[in-house]
Amino acid sequence: MSRFFSEKYRELEPYVPGEQPQKQQQIIKLNTNENPYPPHPEVTEAVAAESRLLHLYSDTDSRDLRNMLAGLLDVSADELIMTNGSDEILNFAFMAFCDRHTPAVFPDITYGFYPVFATIDQVPYREIPVRDDLSIEPEDFYQSGGTVFLANPNAPTSLALQRETIEEILKHNSGNVVVVDEAYVDFGAESALPLIRKYDNLLVTRTFSKSRSMAGARLGFGIGNPDLIGDLNAVRNSTNPYNVNRLTSAAGVACLQYDDYNMKNCGMIMETRASYGRKLRDMGFEMPESRTNFFFARHPSISGRDLYLALKERGILVRHFDQERIRDYNRITVGTPEQMEILIENIRQILDEKKEG
Amino acid sequence: MSRFFSEKYRELEPYVPGEQPQKQQQIIKLNTNENPYPPHPEVTEAVAAESRLLHLYSDTDSRDLRNMLAGLLDVSADELIMTNGSDEILNFAFMAFCDRHTPAVFPDITYGFYPVFATIDQVPYREIPVRDDLSIEPEDFYQSGGTVFLANPNAPTSLALQRETIEEILKHNSGNVVVVDEAYVDFGAESALPLIRKYDNLLVTRTFSKSRSMAGARLGFGIGNPDLIGDLNAVRNSTNPYNVNRLTSAAGVACLQYDDYNMKNCGMIMETRASYGRKLRDMGFEMPESRTNFFFARHPSISGRDLYLALKERGILVRHFDQERIRDYNRITVGTPEQMEILIENIRQILDEKKEG
Repeated sequence: MSRFFSEKYRELEPYVPGEQPQKQQQIIKLNTNENPYPPHPEVTEAVAAESRLLHLYSDTDSRDLRNMLAGLLDVSADELIMTNGSDEILNFAFMAFCDRHTPAVFPDITYGFYPVFATIDQVPYREIPVRDDLSIEPEDFYQSGGTVFLANPNAPTSLALQRETIEEILKHNSGNVVVVDEAYVDFGAESALPLIRKYDNLLVTRTFSKSRSMAGARLGFGIGNPDLIGDLNAVRNSTNPYNVNRLTSAAGVACLQYDDYNMKNCGMIMETRASYGRKLRDMGFEMPESRTNFFFARHPSISGRDLYLALKERGILVRHFDQERIRDYNRITVGTPEQMEILIENIRQILDEKKEG
Repeated sequence: MSRFFSEKYRELEPYVPGEQPQKQQQIIKLNTNENPYPPHPEVTEAVAAESRLLHLYSDTDSRDLRNMLAGLLDVSADELIMTNGSDEILNFAFMAFCDRHTPAVFPDITYGFYPVFATIDQVPYREIPVRDDLSIEPEDFYQSGGTVFLANPNAPTSLALQRETIEEILKHNSGNVVVVDEAYVDFGAESALPLIRKYDNLLVTRTFSKSRSMAGARLGFGIGNPDLIGDLNAVRNSTNPYNVNRLTSAAGVACLQYDDYNMKNCGMIMETRASYGRKLRDMGFEMPESRTNFFFARHPSISGRDLYLALKERGILVRHFDQERIRDYNRITVGTPEQMEILIENIRQILDEKKEG
């Protein structure tokens, strides 16, 4: 820390992303919930063409992308804001809708970035414990007195709430914004999107990182009524108006033109999840019913940390959170069937060695 | 504004970027200081190849890019931080090094985003008037009592301070950070870069937008001692750790591999500036000696706004700031000689019409 760092950030603990191995070869990477399938080949053509225009600024309003997405989601373009990953739209929501009078409210077990956003934006926050089975008790979020952040499906638990449950939470927080972070919604959960015109306090956030194979492009978006979107644009235009660059924007448009390809990949991932979920349970793993592209799994005969380390030694990365209540678990991305086969085989060996040792 | 927007931002006036025409044909765009030359063709190859890996997250530490840049600038990689445009590094500096005890201090005529950053980050700021000739009086920035932000060369004035003047300002602010925003430095000004090891309070910021033809890619960086850079990384990792996406990163590496191409373009732009600067002065324009890729020009026989509007009607965009002290001026990007020829011809017609009318 330099002698100049503002005292307001002395306690800052930045978010720690999953490890990114520098050389990908030999590593099976199941630790950051990336999609195992590359984007559609037309994305390559689109970014190559766009690169000839890189000397010109991007459209601050991402019009092409918003129009395309609006058609696909059956909303209007002014109900959409495009951002540099969904982390950016989440941060904008913390900035726009929280302050010292309006705390952020979220589950104690959820996306680890929420408390970091609250800290960097200097707003108070309140964590509401999930149940012992890791599920969210909806009534705990009624009359929350703050801006509610709900990842749905939740990470790292992989559990989803139904739309009608979200609607009850919206009804019981009519004085405050409820942000529903749907990063993983395309893997079989119910979206709150049909509610945006009924509830002016609903902001849905999404990302191209998971279901659309574009984690490396940084593209997220928010959906809500035009007034909410207007506030978020005021924040965006006061921090980084050109937040979505030309290449990402062109990649996004091409990606949406071939969205059936993306949805087919999601279908394959859900099939892989079903078959390898069964295999993992057969091996003794306990895990919630995943509505995401990852498992959140614990095993009675090995600690979460020991399994994480043993897999890492074998070149397989999964995510372990050294955090109370979930220390027994690992978050394991659903990769290709080939990757899952190698995972299963290695876990089997690790458990066998443990038995023998 | 929604009923939920935080009261802390009720007075927020977002930055207004230069207009971006939706269809480029027929428009001569000299309003946002873009480089008129596209990036090197190898950039296209690089982003096309990288697009096949878009399903994987980018390197949060932009190692390839930092290593490459470190070699080019003769600094070490831990003296560098890469950001989503130089707007992002500037905002991070406002966040990290300003607070209610440490105001931001900058000239009254400078990059219009500084007061916006101060407002969004809720830190006080003090504007120090430039002289009547638009130049900065260095002694006004001695013992500033805050974090100093100096665009050098300054925008929109186009004037540059010499390195020894910056050094005096650094010496007289040893208790505070001095940020030198060198967005335009490659067009003939002196960089403060050689001072970073001598002064632990110096942060230099730069961008690939101007001299490296990558405005549309959003790539900026900061250079300073590793402690300062560490603070900025703490802020970065608490807002958007994956701030530089894969495509931009690959474009940046390719762009630096062919940096002689970029520097040759800068040379051409400086030649165009010299020859068309003479022509504009011959036509009666008054303007400071530009060390940038733009002119800041006023004409005794037409108001800044009238000239801006007349040019716009003719399909030529320049930038007019409706702001006290500089209302008479227009900021005009130095384009290709062909673009400048059309500009000159149109201005001639506008001035003639005015004389006749």
